[in-house]
Amino acid sequence: MLEIEVKVPVTDLGSIETRLVGLGGVFVTEKAQEDLYMAHPCRDFGVTDEALRLRMDGNAQVLTYKGPKMDARSKTREEIEFSVPMEQMRTVLERLGFVKFIQVRKVRKEYVLDDVLVCLDQVEGLGSYVELEFSGQDAEKGLVRVEDIKHRLGIEGNEIRSYLELIIQKKGEM
Amino acid sequence: MLEIEVKVPVTDLGSIETRLVGLGGVFVTEKAQEDLYMAHPCRDFGVTDEALRLRMDGNAQVLTYKGPKMDARSKTREEIEFSVPMEQMRTVLERLGFVKFIQVRKVRKEYVLDDVLVCLDQVEGLGSYVELEFSGQDAEKGLVRVEDIKHRLGIEGNEIRSYLELIIQKKGEM
Repeated sequence: MLEIEVKVPVTDLGSIETRLVGLGGVFVTEKAQEDLYMAHPCRDFGVTDEALRLRMDGNAQVLTYKGPKMDARSKTREEIEFSVPMEQMRTVLERLGFVKFIQVRKVRKEYVLDDVLVCLDQVEGLGSYVELEFSGQDAEKGLVRVEDIKHRLGIEGNEIRSYLELIIQKKGEM
Repeated sequence: MLEIEVKVPVTDLGSIETRLVGLGGVFVTEKAQEDLYMAHPCRDFGVTDEALRLRMDGNAQVLTYKGPKMDARSKTREEIEFSVPMEQMRTVLERLGFVKFIQVRKVRKEYVLDDVLVCLDQVEGLGSYVELEFSGQDAEKGLVRVEDIKHRLGIEGNEIRSYLELIIQKKGEM
């Protein structure tokens, strides 16, 4: 299974949502998502290429550790992920000397249009984005489907940086 | 609610169990318990008076953080405790630089005799112990009840050190 994911910065989510519904998009869910990246008390994750993240996705609360990339060519990393009570896990990590590094907060509305998941993201401190996700065997077909829906929604562009990278960059510019 | 807890080193758990059953002790459960104390990558918990413990108690798997004692007189500590998948949590902690400090493993058989919980503990590397626990409002009554049952079981003594302390001490002597 491949996943094609394209992110487009937009100015007005409301009008895109109206158009999406007009095209037959089916509402799936609306949820708050919060990603809290923690810094290590005596190790620079930027240098070691690791990450420790607490994620609240609707009601789901998850701890994720991402290890360094295993080789230069692929992006393969060790990833360990499991459910935790987020507030308690955060407090334990803070008692152990971990500190909040970056917080990514968004409100996400999900629609399905044909075979594409269309996410309308309002990202705190960054603005509005539409994220289109196609899952399937055929990458070529996925790209065509995503571009078709972008066209029908009247949006263009492709932000390849993650919200985390965008927020880090923005903080660096301030 | 007060808890009176008395631990007695013994040589033969089998004969004590026979006597316990003869006195009307009711079998509750038998389970393996494992406490894994982790050391911090850049902080000496012995100095800061903290502890980070992963506990497997039968099927329950729990992470516990214990903060330093809050004042000299009382033994009050912050204690944060919640369920985790033990193996995954241990792996994440190890990736973050925490290492195994001490492991306390025991097989515990629990009986109830009158209002006292009687635990028959076989502790790896330490030997056999009977732990008697009384929970109630009346400390005086609890102590009397516990001493009475010790007498009826034909055991004596009172080991005030925890299994953790006993193992640390034994390691120091080796």
